[in-house]
Amino acid sequence: MANTINLSVNTNMIDAILKNALEEDMGTGDITTLTTIPGDAVACGKYISKESGIICGIGIAKRVFDLLGENFEFVSYKNDGDFVEKGEIIAEVKGNAVVVLTGERTGLNLMQRLSGIATATDKAVRSVEGTNAKICDTRKTTPGLRVLEKYAVRCGGGTNHRFNLADGILIKDNHIVASGSITNAVRSARMNAPHTLKIEVEVETFEQLNEALAAGADIIMLDNMSNDDMSKAVSIIAGRALVEASGNMGERDLRAVAETGVDLISIGALTHSVKSLDISLKFKLI
Amino acid sequence: MANTINLSVNTNMIDAILKNALEEDMGTGDITTLTTIPGDAVACGKYISKESGIICGIGIAKRVFDLLGENFEFVSYKNDGDFVEKGEIIAEVKGNAVVVLTGERTGLNLMQRLSGIATATDKAVRSVEGTNAKICDTRKTTPGLRVLEKYAVRCGGGTNHRFNLADGILIKDNHIVASGSITNAVRSARMNAPHTLKIEVEVETFEQLNEALAAGADIIMLDNMSNDDMSKAVSIIAGRALVEASGNMGERDLRAVAETGVDLISIGALTHSVKSLDISLKFKLI
Amino acid sequence: MANTINLSVNTNMIDAILKNALEEDMGTGDITTLTTIPGDAVACGKYISKESGIICGIGIAKRVFDLLGENFEFVSYKNDGDFVEKGEIIAEVKGNAVVVLTGERTGLNLMQRLSGIATATDKAVRSVEGTNAKICDTRKTTPGLRVLEKYAVRCGGGTNHRFNLADGILIKDNHIVASGSITNAVRSARMNAPHTLKIEVEVETFEQLNEALAAGADIIMLDNMSNDDMSKAVSIIAGRALVEASGNMGERDLRAVAETGVDLISIGALTHSVKSLDISLKFKLI
Amino acid sequence: MANTINLSVNTNMIDAILKNALEEDMGTGDITTLTTIPGDAVACGKYISKESGIICGIGIAKRVFDLLGENFEFVSYKNDGDFVEKGEIIAEVKGNAVVVLTGERTGLNLMQRLSGIATATDKAVRSVEGTNAKICDTRKTTPGLRVLEKYAVRCGGGTNHRFNLADGILIKDNHIVASGSITNAVRSARMNAPHTLKIEVEVETFEQLNEALAAGADIIMLDNMSNDDMSKAVSIIAGRALVEASGNMGERDLRAVAETGVDLISIGALTHSVKSLDISLKFKLI
Amino acid sequence: MANTINLSVNTNMIDAILKNALEEDMGTGDITTLTTIPGDAVACGKYISKESGIICGIGIAKRVFDLLGENFEFVSYKNDGDFVEKGEIIAEVKGNAVVVLTGERTGLNLMQRLSGIATATDKAVRSVEGTNAKICDTRKTTPGLRVLEKYAVRCGGGTNHRFNLADGILIKDNHIVASGSITNAVRSARMNAPHTLKIEVEVETFEQLNEALAAGADIIMLDNMSNDDMSKAVSIIAGRALVEASGNMGERDLRAVAETGVDLISIGALTHSVKSLDISLKFKLI
Amino acid sequence: MANTINLSVNTNMIDAILKNALEEDMGTGDITTLTTIPGDAVACGKYISKESGIICGIGIAKRVFDLLGENFEFVSYKNDGDFVEKGEIIAEVKGNAVVVLTGERTGLNLMQRLSGIATATDKAVRSVEGTNAKICDTRKTTPGLRVLEKYAVRCGGGTNHRFNLADGILIKDNHIVASGSITNAVRSARMNAPHTLKIEVEVETFEQLNEALAAGADIIMLDNMSNDDMSKAVSIIAGRALVEASGNMGERDLRAVAETGVDLISIGALTHSVKSLDISLKFKLI
Repeated sequence: MANTINLSVNTNMIDAILKNALEEDMGTGDITTLTTIPGDAVACGKYISKESGIICGIGIAKRVFDLLGENFEFVSYKNDGDFVEKGEIIAEVKGNAVVVLTGERTGLNLMQRLSGIATATDKAVRSVEGTNAKICDTRKTTPGLRVLEKYAVRCGGGTNHRFNLADGILIKDNHIVASGSITNAVRSARMNAPHTLKIEVEVETFEQLNEALAAGADIIMLDNMSNDDMSKAVSIIAGRALVEASGNMGERDLRAVAETGVDLISIGALTHSVKSLDISLKFKLI
Repeated sequence: MANTINLSVNTNMIDAILKNALEEDMGTGDITTLTTIPGDAVACGKYISKESGIICGIGIAKRVFDLLGENFEFVSYKNDGDFVEKGEIIAEVKGNAVVVLTGERTGLNLMQRLSGIATATDKAVRSVEGTNAKICDTRKTTPGLRVLEKYAVRCGGGTNHRFNLADGILIKDNHIVASGSITNAVRSARMNAPHTLKIEVEVETFEQLNEALAAGADIIMLDNMSNDDMSKAVSIIAGRALVEASGNMGERDLRAVAETGVDLISIGALTHSVKSLDISLKFKLI
Repeated sequence: MANTINLSVNTNMIDAILKNALEEDMGTGDITTLTTIPGDAVACGKYISKESGIICGIGIAKRVFDLLGENFEFVSYKNDGDFVEKGEIIAEVKGNAVVVLTGERTGLNLMQRLSGIATATDKAVRSVEGTNAKICDTRKTTPGLRVLEKYAVRCGGGTNHRFNLADGILIKDNHIVASGSITNAVRSARMNAPHTLKIEVEVETFEQLNEALAAGADIIMLDNMSNDDMSKAVSIIAGRALVEASGNMGERDLRAVAETGVDLISIGALTHSVKSLDISLKFKLI
Repeated sequence: MANTINLSVNTNMIDAILKNALEEDMGTGDITTLTTIPGDAVACGKYISKESGIICGIGIAKRVFDLLGENFEFVSYKNDGDFVEKGEIIAEVKGNAVVVLTGERTGLNLMQRLSGIATATDKAVRSVEGTNAKICDTRKTTPGLRVLEKYAVRCGGGTNHRFNLADGILIKDNHIVASGSITNAVRSARMNAPHTLKIEVEVETFEQLNEALAAGADIIMLDNMSNDDMSKAVSIIAGRALVEASGNMGERDLRAVAETGVDLISIGALTHSVKSLDISLKFKLI
Repeated sequence: MANTINLSVNTNMIDAILKNALEEDMGTGDITTLTTIPGDAVACGKYISKESGIICGIGIAKRVFDLLGENFEFVSYKNDGDFVEKGEIIAEVKGNAVVVLTGERTGLNLMQRLSGIATATDKAVRSVEGTNAKICDTRKTTPGLRVLEKYAVRCGGGTNHRFNLADGILIKDNHIVASGSITNAVRSARMNAPHTLKIEVEVETFEQLNEALAAGADIIMLDNMSNDDMSKAVSIIAGRALVEASGNMGERDLRAVAETGVDLISIGALTHSVKSLDISLKFKLI
Repeated sequence: MANTINLSVNTNMIDAILKNALEEDMGTGDITTLTTIPGDAVACGKYISKESGIICGIGIAKRVFDLLGENFEFVSYKNDGDFVEKGEIIAEVKGNAVVVLTGERTGLNLMQRLSGIATATDKAVRSVEGTNAKICDTRKTTPGLRVLEKYAVRCGGGTNHRFNLADGILIKDNHIVASGSITNAVRSARMNAPHTLKIEVEVETFEQLNEALAAGADIIMLDNMSNDDMSKAVSIIAGRALVEASGNMGERDLRAVAETGVDLISIGALTHSVKSLDISLKFKLI
């Protein structure tokens, strides 16, 4: 089995996010902790889930402490992608109390947000279980956190749409207007873009759909269509291209969408309207 | 009137966030736009609200285009903090089509998130109207976006709690345990921290409350108390310290909390569980 | 026509390369110029090609001066991608002599290298004219300059292979061994990677070729095959996948390779073994 | 013996180059490897030279893996500056397969380029063996890689000219025109520049040569002179200054140049027109 | 006891200062050391105080070597804040000679400056011993080194005023003029600024003093007042606000100022006009 | 006349210093100004010297405002290097009041420090007027500010020693010990270092002096010698090398040192123990 939910090996990219977050939260230093806690105090903290859901961000929370010092013990009782019950202990950290208290909020903020995304993704994935449809994300992610949020989607069982404007071709209405036609846009993209990328075309009508198919689109995005129209579109496409359902999917009955036969359902709300999972970090001095 | 909802003059800090977001979204370049849109096409885009709410992030969306090139026209019809009806035009941008399409998502992602925060804050503020209580935020913000999210809270009529661990003293249970007592912790903070900072103490019991008052705390945070207990606490404090209500306030009846007489209600959910305001950018080539 | 040889709109990425190069070359300042040239002297410089070829990097040379100050006049007589004869004037710059002399080498070093790449690409493209084959690049670029070097390839009439490890899937021998088989590797990639990416498989034998086709590979890379074998492979593939010829193509007879019917010929030498085009910048004080 | 071919102890500068190169190549992650290789697979790779030459960049390739993780074994069988035969094993790396495959290209790209430079330098150095002349480089290096390329020149037996515009004074025609005369330029530089720097003057005629000597130049650069003129110049200078031959030296008979008696021959082609040494990294899973 | 003179746990901030300083001093490498010292030589260096004073920056000097390599031994005989006699050994470092010599000046420059600040602060603190007054710093610090210089003030027994414009409110004449009155300025700040910050008002007259007190200022800064006026001001304030004496305090008789009853004396000269403590680093090869 | 006291054209380097300083001072924003000053207020500020001296840093103060916004008027009445009387107006700035107040301290802190250095240098230079000796600086500068402080030395009429470890060779006792002898060290440096750099040797005895001269040192540094010994050394050297007097020169009678005939006197105290020049910025709203 390949490591489909591995975060990435671009650790510099992750570290840059975490250092930025720490700097934002620490400012010139945690003045409360520095002025009230003895420099040699040692604390132990337990991450406890206060609601059930899919956990994501354990390694991130650990890495926050790595970036603050060298001698922490960090023990995980769960893996990213695991389901946790309310009240379960997710992980434990032990180390210098001043540093633990300083880094607490940064790790928690991230773990709560990512677990919220994973939990929402998992719910969507389970709702289409048994159909052919995959749940995937969009570019409507939190600026600065995309690589983490797309990882959270994978942890929830979803797949990723393109990571940025460079690693996927998606021809939308504006590109069509500017090129003169879908046919022109697809031809121009095929001639000029790297041959490693598929060409996806967003369509709103059956006329557009037929033009896109004739032009050789690799993927068809059905934008804001009714379920009936999507069923019809799937029949027309007949396996000649991948089919993606899109447009406020966060508010649709996902199972009904999936049953139209689409290959993918992309949901912006997975990342643009996140409800954090409630996780606490309980400390004691030791 | 002072510019209470000005973003900040630390434009380098804002620019760093936006450049980072643009780089994340652009990767090595918008391959669809570069391969399908003529390099000299000019486009006009209108930001239209698809639901009613408090708008926030207009200047941010404008700044995104400033960072991508020099010759954009950007006209605002609203100011940050204004209420917008569904369907209203918020602003217009005109310029090179390739660049407009490239920067679209970054500005929108931010404007939608910030407007979601401002709208939620506004709702909270209106719910306590007529009472003495202010609505304020917490440090449970999106890592990397705190300065923007705290600005959105101000745009919604709220006030800001501390920006980071350095510009406010908040003595919590862990600090108390490590110092031996509230009395010790307050004394140690007063002796060692800059005299420009007030000392806030989080209390869960009346015994702690009395000790904090005796130690000279400037602000008392009542953590997860019932409304009755908060009323009683306000009576005991009797103006000797500011009183802040805290702890899952996002799920409480805010008016009832406000009527206990507290000075501040701090709500993490304003920023940790945001529902974006739906805003679209409609283009046409010109 | 779309702007197929536009550099990119990610100007921050370009500026980062140029600032880095300027800092490397200037150190703490151009001590010769600062101590011998009056601060208010004005100079005019002409970029002159000392051999014929395809020019590339004019905008880059201009941008170097933009980054050093604000009041330069820069006039181009050629566009990137144009053919220049030996002795032709490419562009002229006019401005403060101290600054012009300081920025000279950085712009020239880049323009010479990029023009060398464009010229070599152009030669390769012309050698396969009339066949179906496109000339494309590889990831064997100069570390730190990839986005510029791939642009130079486009200026020479070539197309780009993937820009980095994230925007293209290329399954090589190591991936095959680790997955157990080509079939497994293709299936695992299709299940887990973004659906926007095609799947390319590198093959060395006909057995591998057949397995890759059966697994549904979108692109087949023929690695180091003889022309006869490539002809045979093209027949077998029969349009079911794109075909890319690869492996020391810099030393092969490109026309003969193209005539096997492959769709793409990827050549590492275009960027890893560049001979700079000789360009000089002739100054006079004015 | 001093460590004349040590890279530098400015490891931050080297790391910045490597991190930049890795980020450029990885983008958001190696999607092929992440989706096809098990996360716990271990690989071993052998760096093998596919042609003979001077090897350079072994430590660089090792450092790439250090920057990607902590637990690699890296064994070198050669040192930078050593001659390698075709087919020789240069080094071996062992570690996590996902990470090894991700970092492969970055290290190889650099090692091949640097070895190409070292090999070309070595050839030049051997061609002037027995004469008094040293082979040195110029500022015509790859933007962003100068410190590495100048190290490669040292590994090939050459010496370095100035690293940047701040650590050497080189008065060229433009400086002379702007100052009024060689005499003025030398005097102004001597008065104003740090006394730790020698003053080099580029001359094209014997008249200029005599003026430069009279002005007290420490180094004379003979620009594009015939061998006869250089011999004559060396006689005139008679040890009063160092003598550097310059100007398209990459296309000259270096031994003949050296036999004119010059002290240094500076060759831009060593770094601006590099032919990479062919090195491969052969993996197997273990 | 809390760690009142701990530097900060924001090690990234400290490391950024040190890396910047090292890069500034090393340039492309220590050419003297690299060309004269064998690469495997080992040196031992002793930090010796050449005058008596309060030492500060030992950990900083150690950290410089950490950033340059991994295998140094660093032994401290003193702690930051300790008094050292002329001739005492402060610390010893042992490691690779090339690296030790390269990093020597950066660590020394900082240790000397910080010890100079700590020594001057200590002198000021001792001069007011037995009074109620604390000695504190200002924002007149060396640009880029504030966090270190404020730490040095703490090591000398002083306390810190605000670290930056965000973590303290200080209403000065310009703010008063722009708001219309002290009353307006205080009210506006209280309404809009985070409630965690005290409000300090700078006054020059008794009229201003009374208005500030009436407006509820938490801290009164007496600017450039005579000792008599300060005594009178302290009487008027009568414990209703903290009292800070300010304005060229570096040239005043501090004991006399303290005896007026002020709570704090802020002295810009502690950091803007520093006399470094003379410390040497004596090496020997081993 | 060449621009001997121009700052540098490496504006990126200067801007990096200023942005860093602004970020340090602003934190998340100037909370006092933002909450008390109307966003559209306009202010005018006059830089006034409160003591006489050599002014330095006017362009720096101006650049601070450039970096904070675009529409400032900045008028200079003096140039860097000019003498100012107590009470003279140096420059005026006019623009948005919020921004002016925010950037005030950063510009002033730098201008005061640089003017202090220029004034001290000027005093030293005038004390040796009429002799052959130049006054120069050392590497004992404030970490992070070297390029500015060395500029201030030039503004005061001094010259610069090397900027960093890469642009000057200075062989000290440790290098001599490690090389075996002065002769070895000089030979090794000459063989391996760029030929553009002079070789300076620090000597403490006449024996060392003679060895250094015999080895061909270009510059002799006389370390901590008495005036008599320096006179004798100058006689021995007899023009064969430049002579630099060094070692606590800040506490010596500079005229007496100069009269020994040395070419240069290097003074660390010029930059390591600076007394800032007192300059104020007087605002009024307009």
